[in-house]
This record gives sequence, C-alpha cells and structure tokens, in this order.
Amino acid sequence: MPILQIEILKGRTVEQKREMVKKVTEAVSETLNCPKDAVSIIIREMETENFAKAGKLRSDNN
Amino acid sequence: MPILQIEILKGRTVEQKREMVKKVTEAVSETLNCPKDAVSIIIREMETENFAKAGKLRSDNN
Amino acid sequence: MPILQIEILKGRTVEQKREMVKKVTEAVSETLNCPKDAVSIIIREMETENFAKAGKLRSDNN
Amino acid sequence: MPILQIEILKGRTVEQKREMVKKVTEAVSETLNCPKDAVSIIIREMETENFAKAGKLRSDNN
Amino acid sequence: MPILQIEILKGRTVEQKREMVKKVTEAVSETLNCPKDAVSIIIREMETENFAKAGKLRSDNN
Amino acid sequence: MPILQIEILKGRTVEQKREMVKKVTEAVSETLNCPKDAVSIIIREMETENFAKAGKLRSDNN
Repeated sequence: MPILQIEILKGRTVEQKREMVKKVTEAVSETLNCPKDAVSIIIREMETENFAKAGKLRSDNN
Repeated sequence: MPILQIEILKGRTVEQKREMVKKVTEAVSETLNCPKDAVSIIIREMETENFAKAGKLRSDNN
Repeated sequence: MPILQIEILKGRTVEQKREMVKKVTEAVSETLNCPKDAVSIIIREMETENFAKAGKLRSDNN
Repeated sequence: MPILQIEILKGRTVEQKREMVKKVTEAVSETLNCPKDAVSIIIREMETENFAKAGKLRSDNN
Repeated sequence: MPILQIEILKGRTVEQKREMVKKVTEAVSETLNCPKDAVSIIIREMETENFAKAGKLRSDNN
Repeated sequence: MPILQIEILKGRTVEQKREMVKKVTEAVSETLNCPKDAVSIIIREMETENFAKAGKLRSDNN
C-alpha cells in the first residue's frame, strides 16, 4: 500500500527513472516488509522556474 | 471544504473529465453532507513513464 | 490507476467515509472507464486550526 | 524545513512567480521563526480543464 | 484558486499558524493578483520521526 | 532537490522508518545522480479507516 510521490527537476532520462523506481521499490519493500506489488510511485517533474529554495527560483541560480 | 487531488494517466478526453468531476462532486457532497460549492478538485495527468507499480514503469508494460 | 487524495475536516464518522469511498470509486470507475480495483483513495483529516481560507484559520470562524 | 506545494492556474509570468516565492518565503520565515534557507516551494500549474469547483471544470466557465 | 499545502514540524502555536496563514495569503494575493478569498491553505504537521533529510530521520539529530 | 512523500499505514516502528529513509535516499541518490543531502522525505501515516481500494475501506477487510 505504500504510495510514493517523488518530485524532481526535469532532465532525467527514462533509463534513470526506470532504475530509480526499481531501486526505491526494493528499498521500501525490504524495510517495510511488504510485497513489491503493493508499492506505487508517482513521479512529478518540475521546470526550474517552478521550484524555489530560500525565496529564490531555481531558474535564477547561476 | 473537501479538496481532492486526482492522479490519472494521460489520455482522457475533456468530456470524461467533465463527467468525472460532476459525479465525484455529487458523491462527496451527498455522503459528507456538504454543499457542492465547497468541493474543489485538482486533476493531475501523468505520462506512462512517470508512474510505476511493483518497481516497473507503466511505459515498460506490454 | 487513479489515485485520489481527499482532504476533509475532522468529524466525519466511519460510516460516512465508507459511503464516500464507495460512491466516489463508482463515479471515477464509470466516467474514466477503469475497473474499481484500480482506484485507491487516501483520506486526510484536518483539525480546524490547520485549514485557512482568505487568510483566516477555520478555527477562528464563529 | 517547511515545504510548500502551491497549485495555481497556468498563465502567470516568471516575474510573478519570482515575487511570489520571495514574499511567501519571507512570510513563512518570519511567522514560523525559521531561516529562509529552510523553506522549499514547489509550484504546480494547471490547465483550466484540470481544475473543478462545485462539480464544474474551470474551462467551462464563461 | 491558489491552493497551498504547507508541511511543518509539530510544535508551532495556534498564534503562529494564525499569523502565518494571514501573511502568506497576503503575499500570494498581491503577487499573483487574485482576491484573498480565493486562497486556501492546508497545514500538515509532522512528528520529527516522520521527516528525513540526507537519509536520516530528524528525530535522530542531536 | 528530490522531495518524496511516502504514505504508509500506521504500525511501523521507528527502526523500520530509519532503515527505510536510509535505503530510499541511497536509491534516489545513486540513480538520479544527486547528493544524499539534497533528498528530503516526508512520511505520512494513515489509520486503516483512511485508506480505500476498490471502493472499500481497509479497516473493513477481514
């Protein structure tokens, strides 16, 4: 039943996402003691103008 | 005041979304006993490469 | 695959939640054309001091 | 550590987002007594056909 | 229509939340050019054992 | 910058959460090629009456 929402900046390849969901699902399944089938993952990708830290848009960083 | 966030895969028509928010709002309003005006719904659409089940991207399913 | 997150104020009974998830799942399943088995719902309950509208906590309303 | 998720309709300029994250971060930092560095903000933009109020898509409003 | 979800650690007073939602709503309203009535805020409070940074639970920090 | 929100049912120990955030952070860091310091995780725990699958509350399962 674990449901994960993962926010990342745009720019990762499908291959990176494929590896990420595989490894993260294994990590959750092993540590929480639940079948891998029970783990759902939603990935959300952001433009750098849609993320801010310390009051500053990421797209404004040099 | 109920606020709903609904994650779906891309590919539904506007007509399907229109029917969905109408019916879901009625269901929430009737069962929770609140006016329909109070119900907000956010729909988020995902590419199949951004959803995973059992450690596998949906886009990798055959 | 639809995943719903529903934010409500505290105070509903289990019976109300039971009816709500039943009716909402039917509404989503019929309008989006997906099996009911595919619909997951997360309910989150808030204290009135954790919701604000127009800059004012709900718990401050008379 | 405050993490904010802000859902808005599409159509704002980068300049508006820049001002928004600056002012919101100051407001959070001052009132919750935490350094601005600790505040992260995720902005999510919606099409008007992906937001509904009172059972009606925003894109159907005249 | 802006909807904000704000995640904070437990321990703030109601007075701090009251000030926070007031100031954040003003900041959003002014910069995005929308009425204050349109701004909804959900606050979610976490135990320190439910937040992690760099792979370490906050409750394990000294 | 990856920010993860992980929804689980109540009942896990702090030790399980500690292992989970450690392993998940390593998995994200390795596959997305980002420092572990950049990974934040929010854990949210649900009562079984606040999760539903196929229109049925988890608390109603036998």
